[in-house]
Amino acid sequence: MSDLSKMESRKMSYRVDGEFFIITFTDPQTLNSLSGTDFLYLARLLEIAETCESVSFTVLQSTGRFFSAGADISHISKVQKAAQQDPTGMLGKWLAEFASRNVFVTHTFASHSKILVCCLNGPAVGLTAALVMLCDIVYSMNDKVYLMFPFANLALVTEGALSVTLPMKLGYNVAHEILMFAKPVTYHQLIDKVIVRNYMLSDTETFNSQVLSDLQEKTSGLHHDSIINMKELLKRPILSELKRANIDEVADAMKYWVQSLPQQRFQEIGMKKRKHKF
Amino acid sequence: MSDLSKMESRKMSYRVDGEFFIITFTDPQTLNSLSGTDFLYLARLLEIAETCESVSFTVLQSTGRFFSAGADISHISKVQKAAQQDPTGMLGKWLAEFASRNVFVTHTFASHSKILVCCLNGPAVGLTAALVMLCDIVYSMNDKVYLMFPFANLALVTEGALSVTLPMKLGYNVAHEILMFAKPVTYHQLIDKVIVRNYMLSDTETFNSQVLSDLQEKTSGLHHDSIINMKELLKRPILSELKRANIDEVADAMKYWVQSLPQQRFQEIGMKKRKHKF
Amino acid sequence: MSDLSKMESRKMSYRVDGEFFIITFTDPQTLNSLSGTDFLYLARLLEIAETCESVSFTVLQSTGRFFSAGADISHISKVQKAAQQDPTGMLGKWLAEFASRNVFVTHTFASHSKILVCCLNGPAVGLTAALVMLCDIVYSMNDKVYLMFPFANLALVTEGALSVTLPMKLGYNVAHEILMFAKPVTYHQLIDKVIVRNYMLSDTETFNSQVLSDLQEKTSGLHHDSIINMKELLKRPILSELKRANIDEVADAMKYWVQSLPQQRFQEIGMKKRKHKF
Amino acid sequence: MSDLSKMESRKMSYRVDGEFFIITFTDPQTLNSLSGTDFLYLARLLEIAETCESVSFTVLQSTGRFFSAGADISHISKVQKAAQQDPTGMLGKWLAEFASRNVFVTHTFASHSKILVCCLNGPAVGLTAALVMLCDIVYSMNDKVYLMFPFANLALVTEGALSVTLPMKLGYNVAHEILMFAKPVTYHQLIDKVIVRNYMLSDTETFNSQVLSDLQEKTSGLHHDSIINMKELLKRPILSELKRANIDEVADAMKYWVQSLPQQRFQEIGMKKRKHKF
Amino acid sequence: MSDLSKMESRKMSYRVDGEFFIITFTDPQTLNSLSGTDFLYLARLLEIAETCESVSFTVLQSTGRFFSAGADISHISKVQKAAQQDPTGMLGKWLAEFASRNVFVTHTFASHSKILVCCLNGPAVGLTAALVMLCDIVYSMNDKVYLMFPFANLALVTEGALSVTLPMKLGYNVAHEILMFAKPVTYHQLIDKVIVRNYMLSDTETFNSQVLSDLQEKTSGLHHDSIINMKELLKRPILSELKRANIDEVADAMKYWVQSLPQQRFQEIGMKKRKHKF
Amino acid sequence: MSDLSKMESRKMSYRVDGEFFIITFTDPQTLNSLSGTDFLYLARLLEIAETCESVSFTVLQSTGRFFSAGADISHISKVQKAAQQDPTGMLGKWLAEFASRNVFVTHTFASHSKILVCCLNGPAVGLTAALVMLCDIVYSMNDKVYLMFPFANLALVTEGALSVTLPMKLGYNVAHEILMFAKPVTYHQLIDKVIVRNYMLSDTETFNSQVLSDLQEKTSGLHHDSIINMKELLKRPILSELKRANIDEVADAMKYWVQSLPQQRFQEIGMKKRKHKF
Repeated sequence: MSDLSKMESRKMSYRVDGEFFIITFTDPQTLNSLSGTDFLYLARLLEIAETCESVSFTVLQSTGRFFSAGADISHISKVQKAAQQDPTGMLGKWLAEFASRNVFVTHTFASHSKILVCCLNGPAVGLTAALVMLCDIVYSMNDKVYLMFPFANLALVTEGALSVTLPMKLGYNVAHEILMFAKPVTYHQLIDKVIVRNYMLSDTETFNSQVLSDLQEKTSGLHHDSIINMKELLKRPILSELKRANIDEVADAMKYWVQSLPQQRFQEIGMKKRKHKF
Repeated sequence: MSDLSKMESRKMSYRVDGEFFIITFTDPQTLNSLSGTDFLYLARLLEIAETCESVSFTVLQSTGRFFSAGADISHISKVQKAAQQDPTGMLGKWLAEFASRNVFVTHTFASHSKILVCCLNGPAVGLTAALVMLCDIVYSMNDKVYLMFPFANLALVTEGALSVTLPMKLGYNVAHEILMFAKPVTYHQLIDKVIVRNYMLSDTETFNSQVLSDLQEKTSGLHHDSIINMKELLKRPILSELKRANIDEVADAMKYWVQSLPQQRFQEIGMKKRKHKF
Repeated sequence: MSDLSKMESRKMSYRVDGEFFIITFTDPQTLNSLSGTDFLYLARLLEIAETCESVSFTVLQSTGRFFSAGADISHISKVQKAAQQDPTGMLGKWLAEFASRNVFVTHTFASHSKILVCCLNGPAVGLTAALVMLCDIVYSMNDKVYLMFPFANLALVTEGALSVTLPMKLGYNVAHEILMFAKPVTYHQLIDKVIVRNYMLSDTETFNSQVLSDLQEKTSGLHHDSIINMKELLKRPILSELKRANIDEVADAMKYWVQSLPQQRFQEIGMKKRKHKF
Repeated sequence: MSDLSKMESRKMSYRVDGEFFIITFTDPQTLNSLSGTDFLYLARLLEIAETCESVSFTVLQSTGRFFSAGADISHISKVQKAAQQDPTGMLGKWLAEFASRNVFVTHTFASHSKILVCCLNGPAVGLTAALVMLCDIVYSMNDKVYLMFPFANLALVTEGALSVTLPMKLGYNVAHEILMFAKPVTYHQLIDKVIVRNYMLSDTETFNSQVLSDLQEKTSGLHHDSIINMKELLKRPILSELKRANIDEVADAMKYWVQSLPQQRFQEIGMKKRKHKF
Repeated sequence: MSDLSKMESRKMSYRVDGEFFIITFTDPQTLNSLSGTDFLYLARLLEIAETCESVSFTVLQSTGRFFSAGADISHISKVQKAAQQDPTGMLGKWLAEFASRNVFVTHTFASHSKILVCCLNGPAVGLTAALVMLCDIVYSMNDKVYLMFPFANLALVTEGALSVTLPMKLGYNVAHEILMFAKPVTYHQLIDKVIVRNYMLSDTETFNSQVLSDLQEKTSGLHHDSIINMKELLKRPILSELKRANIDEVADAMKYWVQSLPQQRFQEIGMKKRKHKF
Repeated sequence: MSDLSKMESRKMSYRVDGEFFIITFTDPQTLNSLSGTDFLYLARLLEIAETCESVSFTVLQSTGRFFSAGADISHISKVQKAAQQDPTGMLGKWLAEFASRNVFVTHTFASHSKILVCCLNGPAVGLTAALVMLCDIVYSMNDKVYLMFPFANLALVTEGALSVTLPMKLGYNVAHEILMFAKPVTYHQLIDKVIVRNYMLSDTETFNSQVLSDLQEKTSGLHHDSIINMKELLKRPILSELKRANIDEVADAMKYWVQSLPQQRFQEIGMKKRKHKF
């Protein structure tokens, strides 16, 4: 899979440090919002991590105020215009641009064999927030972090197998309160369930390097194969359900994209005619 | 299904208000205890809510001190007497009166497609409490609410698919402590797991109208179809298990009804010879 | 459960012979058609077989031309009349009379621990035919036997967990051809899949006694506990699905009963205005 | 979803005739080979059938010698060229062109609510053959029909949820013999398992119209809702597994596409350097 | 895992030939009956096949009249004597000798990633026959082969996950007829379900070499990775159930071993006081 | 199963007191560390409790500072030496000594029908700690108790179905933090999830007798059969998964034992060359 260079993303970088494959979102100006191609690139990075024998942990880090503001809105209107000309119509275009990438990145996260660690420096929104929910371990920089799943406000449904991870990790009733009213998930709802430690820091760089040095210390002397093997054992009971949810969610969302409902609501948000719920 | 009027219940009323189908228990004198016919009527109301295109939320509210005191004991002794004359015997009578209604109301709650919101103004007991556990979102009036599942004290077993919802929502070990010793479930065990918000109010009417106006505000501008669709996605992984539990629970309970064990213990409670565990 | 005598059925008898609990349908005049009470009685017999320590096999036999012609039509019109007066309406009455008994007899067959042997002397129809499909071993008297599942013709859906047993035992596509067109299941479709041996006899009594003496010979010297234990092992992978199907089928059928659709079609058949599909 | 006209396909036509939604492959010159866009169009037709209240059966018919020769090879080399220029690389291009359409058409077939009837007039190959395996009822024109799943010969894996339907319908060991050696599935392997009736005809038009008139006769007087409802009941136990297989199969195949292995083997077949196994 | 040499078995040999890892039972004098150590050695051979990158098929062949006569009876009485002295008693000894090896060899077969091909030259009995049922592809030398599962005659229950494979491959009712009466499974029951081709030969050596040359021809030009990958896809829906059955079967059997019931019946067979059922 | 006396363990005693079957670890000198034989004996005690009709609760108690320090290290080096001479090699020996007992004790706990109550007087380590996680109800003596799962430090993987119970009871992300870094599970992570009540005592004897008298009071007047029946209902949805995990965990661990990796790390701990992670 040698064509990584071709699809290079200016939104993220990666490096390998011993047992750690570190992916960093590097576009604080756009609050690390990501296009379809960026999500594809992220999935490819996970596939590379997968093949690194020495790696036990794939660590997601970010820069600036937000972990990631989710989908790049400008990208959506571009696809919409292209769809109007495309011979395969809205369905073909949105399948190719939205569904295929959503399914692929979700599948890649759900079936990743290394321990997925997320260093949550700030808010995450939409699909990126759903990917945070797919991580095995989350550390927060402080108690100001939150996740946003504004699907009910956007004429969309859960993405990233969130319909399985949200009730599983935060509880069934809490998941309904969050999703049905497009309410943010606060730090207090996340701690001890999704977030396993609050670093109580204010600077992202300090936070990122502190987590890494802690990880290094915590894993020294441990048996690499045991770690990978135990993740596989923990994942086994839920993996089929994550895959089923992935395809169900995207198939359900297609209806709305084909009717241009989310496109319209994203546009309203872009034009400040529609607000997120807080 | 036009025979609703015939089976009308003096125990509850309903109305539709925009996206909300509101069912209210209206018999505070009996602490809103319900007979088999009342449970059947309740299930019918859910079926009507199901067919209202405009409705996204089915809201359960109550009046007076209790949300619902559960099964109407006087009804039980009436059925017992009838059973002694019935040509199909205890089995036929209790199947017809107890099992069929229990299975039906549980199945109707478990497979309801609208968001089930419960406004818990006070304690709920037995089957009604199990239905509260089947709701997607629960708000409490204050911290005095509790649920009671006195099955071990009544020679019964879990009802209303509680053998699935209780461990799923409160944890496996906590579920055992509650059920094996017939202990009430306190507000502190419910908050952030079953109850998603405590209104800290003392008056039921204020509570009921406050929840409704909050719901109206929280859902304004949201996409109706997204809401229904997301509930379906969240429910999918557990629905088969809820249905299996429903039939298993009722089949297991039949043994005890046929031996008249619960009847006898209900009678002892009616005569104050047996106390609930607190 | 001492009230068996009260609900005695003139439609069937039973006896215990060593390892065998033998139930015989004894009403050839009505082609062994069964009312709700008869199905209840049949379920009670299985419960008695369950408790007989010495019994390893529960054997179903019949008399006359048909194994069983299914539901007693006259009974249906009686219930329909009663339903029109009943305070719980169509829903309450059909739940009590139809659903509760269907669910109970199906659950009892599906979870029976002894080996269920069916001696198919002739055709079986409807719920009884579905119970034949729930048996572990079926012997046929000759190649004239068939099963009929005329649900599509009666405004009903599969009963007796047939939506699981039919595709499992006869194949997914064959199950569709049978059910969607209300076509009989022929001997040639059943042999080597449901029927494990064709006795090629013409007399029911000879057939019944021949099967029993064969069973006696085949089981001599075998370990009773191994037999019961192996059935449990074989049943384990499918039991939850049978239970789920049972409740789903009855819940789906209720819609049609409440609208009086099957009642009307049964009446048409009774008046020869509607024919079965052959 | 009004953009059907835009993506119109010259490969197939459709019409509604009472309870029947009939889709006909109309390109006998190419043996009804289909491009990605054609598969998308086919899926859209199923979605239209889905929304037709009056329709109970979606019937697939074809013309000429083959039911469908599967993927249009010329299309594959076109995509391959485009992929070499695409900014998202092989991964992005094949996701957009191959994976997204494969997943979508498979999901649409697997979750279709009407009875899927396939009139198999001749051989079917690859993805189309997998869709035949997803149909509920298959009739064959004669005993010369066969299915081909040459995945092992093409550096691909099963498609169209075949990894679930093939063992389920033909048996686990037979499925291995077929797939591991890329052997055709003969009529004799299909009859009574996938094919429920052999019409023993030699002319496709006669076959097509005979099936339709038979269907009309067989369904007359039957209850539409029962039919749809029973299919849903039969599908319920396997639907999650079909969805899981769909995503697993496509995710596994992506590895090979990205390495250009199937492309190369398709090219060899186009240039007659590689033969199918018979 | 370098200690293979130490545990070498005189009962079987192995060799690698291109894509094929061939294991041959080489003790025709004892009809290839196997002790616990032999089963362990067989499992170790599968583990070696697992690690051979070049291998796609693990082929089981035998010599002489029987494929394998199953458990070595003399071994059983030896263990029984040792158990009477063992500080951990019957339980500890039979766990160590019987359960642990049964579980291990079954788990190794069930989770083997290469295609398991069995060349059935003659009858197979007991655990070996259950392993035949776990193979993906079976060829028979002629129509005289059969399998014997005499568990009901030996105070045992199914082994080798047979409680899952037998109903899955031969049908639910046929599985009951076979197991409950300890009846042999004939060639006619196996063909087209377990056996995919009958070579109609009379000489084992000819048969063995003919199968190998056929395999070589059938796989030439096929893509190795596709083959392994498709087996994984086919196995995925049933693997958890095979594992669950493995442990359930052995746990159930322990009760009987601890009571010395199978030991006694094996002894009766050894002394010709008990016969197998034919 | 009369050979209990033979395998008597000096590490634990048991007694029956009304509804309670009480097992007490009685070797505070070794911190109640247990050998394979001890675990076997413990499983046998559960089997005896199983057969006591009058018993509803199986209560685990301990003595001294630790609940149990887990596997007896000296025992491990003894087995290792024996393995080097054993004709079945490392695999045969570790299967017989480690795997078979681990699987058996886990299966016995997972499928125990009485309510399992654990009185956690102090820390528990390794397999014993995993058994604590399999208990239905846990009471702690005070907030100094903890559990240790140092598998990543020992070149092992989860045991005792912990790969299912840990995420189920403590949450998916918390389970990863604990297992991947071999971190102890603190009282604060356990309370309200695994531990249902903290007795805030400092003396083990007082704690043990206080729990028993509380249990006696809490169960007085309750219906024995309801209690057992409700546990069965609560266990049903997870039992298959526990069994599957049991066999998967042991099969995965065997690889490491055969390579002598855990043996070496246990030795390092014994010689103080390796420390536990705190």
